[in-house]
Amino acid sequence: MTSITRPDCVRRDDEDPLAAFRQEFLLPEGVIYLDGNSLGALPAAAPGRIARTVEHEWGERLIASWNDAGWWDKPRTLGAKLAPLVGAAPQEVVVGDGTSANLFKVLVAALRLNPERHVVLGEKGNFSTDLYITEGVAEIMGAVERRVEVDNRAALAGALAAGDVAVLLLSHVDYRTGALRDMAGITRLAHANGALVVWDLCHSVGALPIELADRGVDFAVGCTYKYLNAGPGAPAFVFAAQRHHAAARQPLTGWHGHARPFDFSSGYAPAEGASRFLSGSQPVVAAAALEASLDLWQRVDLRLLREKSVALTELFIELTRAAGLDLLTPRAADRRGSQVALRHPGGYAIVQALIARGVVGDFRAPDVLRFGFAPLYLGYADVFDAAAALVDVVGSGQWRDPRFAAAKAVT
Amino acid sequence: MTSITRPDCVRRDDEDPLAAFRQEFLLPEGVIYLDGNSLGALPAAAPGRIARTVEHEWGERLIASWNDAGWWDKPRTLGAKLAPLVGAAPQEVVVGDGTSANLFKVLVAALRLNPERHVVLGEKGNFSTDLYITEGVAEIMGAVERRVEVDNRAALAGALAAGDVAVLLLSHVDYRTGALRDMAGITRLAHANGALVVWDLCHSVGALPIELADRGVDFAVGCTYKYLNAGPGAPAFVFAAQRHHAAARQPLTGWHGHARPFDFSSGYAPAEGASRFLSGSQPVVAAAALEASLDLWQRVDLRLLREKSVALTELFIELTRAAGLDLLTPRAADRRGSQVALRHPGGYAIVQALIARGVVGDFRAPDVLRFGFAPLYLGYADVFDAAAALVDVVGSGQWRDPRFAAAKAVT
Repeated sequence: MTSITRPDCVRRDDEDPLAAFRQEFLLPEGVIYLDGNSLGALPAAAPGRIARTVEHEWGERLIASWNDAGWWDKPRTLGAKLAPLVGAAPQEVVVGDGTSANLFKVLVAALRLNPERHVVLGEKGNFSTDLYITEGVAEIMGAVERRVEVDNRAALAGALAAGDVAVLLLSHVDYRTGALRDMAGITRLAHANGALVVWDLCHSVGALPIELADRGVDFAVGCTYKYLNAGPGAPAFVFAAQRHHAAARQPLTGWHGHARPFDFSSGYAPAEGASRFLSGSQPVVAAAALEASLDLWQRVDLRLLREKSVALTELFIELTRAAGLDLLTPRAADRRGSQVALRHPGGYAIVQALIARGVVGDFRAPDVLRFGFAPLYLGYADVFDAAAALVDVVGSGQWRDPRFAAAKAVT
Repeated sequence: MTSITRPDCVRRDDEDPLAAFRQEFLLPEGVIYLDGNSLGALPAAAPGRIARTVEHEWGERLIASWNDAGWWDKPRTLGAKLAPLVGAAPQEVVVGDGTSANLFKVLVAALRLNPERHVVLGEKGNFSTDLYITEGVAEIMGAVERRVEVDNRAALAGALAAGDVAVLLLSHVDYRTGALRDMAGITRLAHANGALVVWDLCHSVGALPIELADRGVDFAVGCTYKYLNAGPGAPAFVFAAQRHHAAARQPLTGWHGHARPFDFSSGYAPAEGASRFLSGSQPVVAAAALEASLDLWQRVDLRLLREKSVALTELFIELTRAAGLDLLTPRAADRRGSQVALRHPGGYAIVQALIARGVVGDFRAPDVLRFGFAPLYLGYADVFDAAAALVDVVGSGQWRDPRFAAAKAVT
């Protein structure tokens, strides 16, 4: 049994240097939200920013806002604001399209940059869209898809040593287990074996510091609606390392990625920098929410964020040991993201029973309970209360109540 | 000289069966907005709908809204609402991604459905993204791109008669000239020559009735931010004819296009219907604006819309003859969309002078003035006033004022 008390946690909240960020999010009363790894909470500044974009920029200023309100350049200006969160230079990141489309673009670009090779190496158990897009890319490029257990380093090394891997695609943090991969070591290993590397940052951006440039990463993609709080289905992003800008060719060659789009010339010529990874017009109203969130993120110390994230997940793991569920997430703090996954055959019902108590996590079939810890709006006392609820739901057998039985899977 | 007077126009407004729709749009005071062919005006219902999506669905209900608020199904439910505007069955249309990405998907799908052939036939002078995406598709598919003067029917027939055209891509209404193409005749001609047809509806959807199913069209794409008023960069759509649903394979194989996405299975299996043209998560906040607009469109009689559109463009053409500009748009009403394009070497300055008077059109280099006529929020007296302004700006020589000289191109 742990000896951590609620007053201990309240004290830690009082001393938390990030505590003030809680006021910058709107969350429903009585809810402890542990699903920010799926859909981030609403920044308090977002509704006003969106309303201004809709009512003033669109409604009043109309077409003039493409220039005057900076709509045309949003994919670049938002990319530049996002860049420090992934350790990139401003011109290495653009915002637009979705993660799936962006994966398609960077995988094709990577294959074209490594034309002597024909294998896309992915990971078994990666998020489905990463697997499916790889399949689509392999088919259209005449490439071969292979998959490896990426958390088995020997297996990964062996697959890379085959010498035919053009590009390795990995998730930085596993969406299911919360395992954090060694970006530096794996990128080095891939490069040493002649492969380029694409990292999917969906479950790590906004959860921990990322150093894409320092690690020598080639390409990365990620979404902005999880830890970055930009709203449901908000535009995703692409990172392309500076050294690849001149040669990278992606196939979704729309006019927003053209070097001189307003020439309306008859032939495609890719833009400078990461802009060549743009394609068509982007949803400006959705971008307004992202901008509100990124403006907040400019003030976040990512080292403090990571410290708090580790402390919160550590606390949750410790406090929920009494519930007796299997821990799926790596126990070593430096091997996990900002998520804790537990396993239990009654996982679905347990998650439902917790939601009924105002503790919102989610469930992934067949037996995984996922809890995400967004350090900007979660405190230590929240984690104490959530853990206590879990221990009680399991210990009391309340989860066996028929009203919590599986009905319909939740996204 | 025409004998049409302003009181004549006011009388026509009084008798206009569509006049009440004007109140359902928010437009700035003192502006006659003739750029709805570029960015449609703000529906009055949109700000409230967006605010509800942001503050209630996202802020309060959070992750539960993927099911409870229908977020997951929006690409399909919005597609079904859009379907009658293009003469399609509900399951033939999905909303999502941008026009460029959707063009990529349908062109690849069409090439795969016609594997004995290798040519993508496009049109000279089509909107740049159509040309550039075709180039990108041709490169990745090992296909050949050819272009034809589509308004020269003999040239088009000759190009199709070559017998190697897999797919023909055309704009239904030309973005520059406003020319309306004969969808029925061209589709028949293409089919008779063994080619599939993709129509780009960006400049026709919401401007006139479209009968995709009756015309036997194979695929179509279009945007929703012009005549459909869904806001800057709003999600685009894909039409796929029912008969192609089983065999069509598009390459952006993200999880939203999967037959059973929540199985998180390791292999891709395309969904039924047009849903297989989906890829990743879509911006829900942007979709809220589209929904507000489509709900309004459910009440629009497209026959009356087209009648008024023709009357408005006819009126503008007649009234502006006195200005002496060249008419680029076809003079026959059945050969034009809802746009009038005029040519003048001082076009840029004339457009600027008009904007200074509150008449908003746009300019396309080198010498084209474009004026769009959205029948839901424009009246006959508006057109009278706009035409009078144009005649005066040109006739008085006011456009030569240095303050209207070219500085920076407007999107």
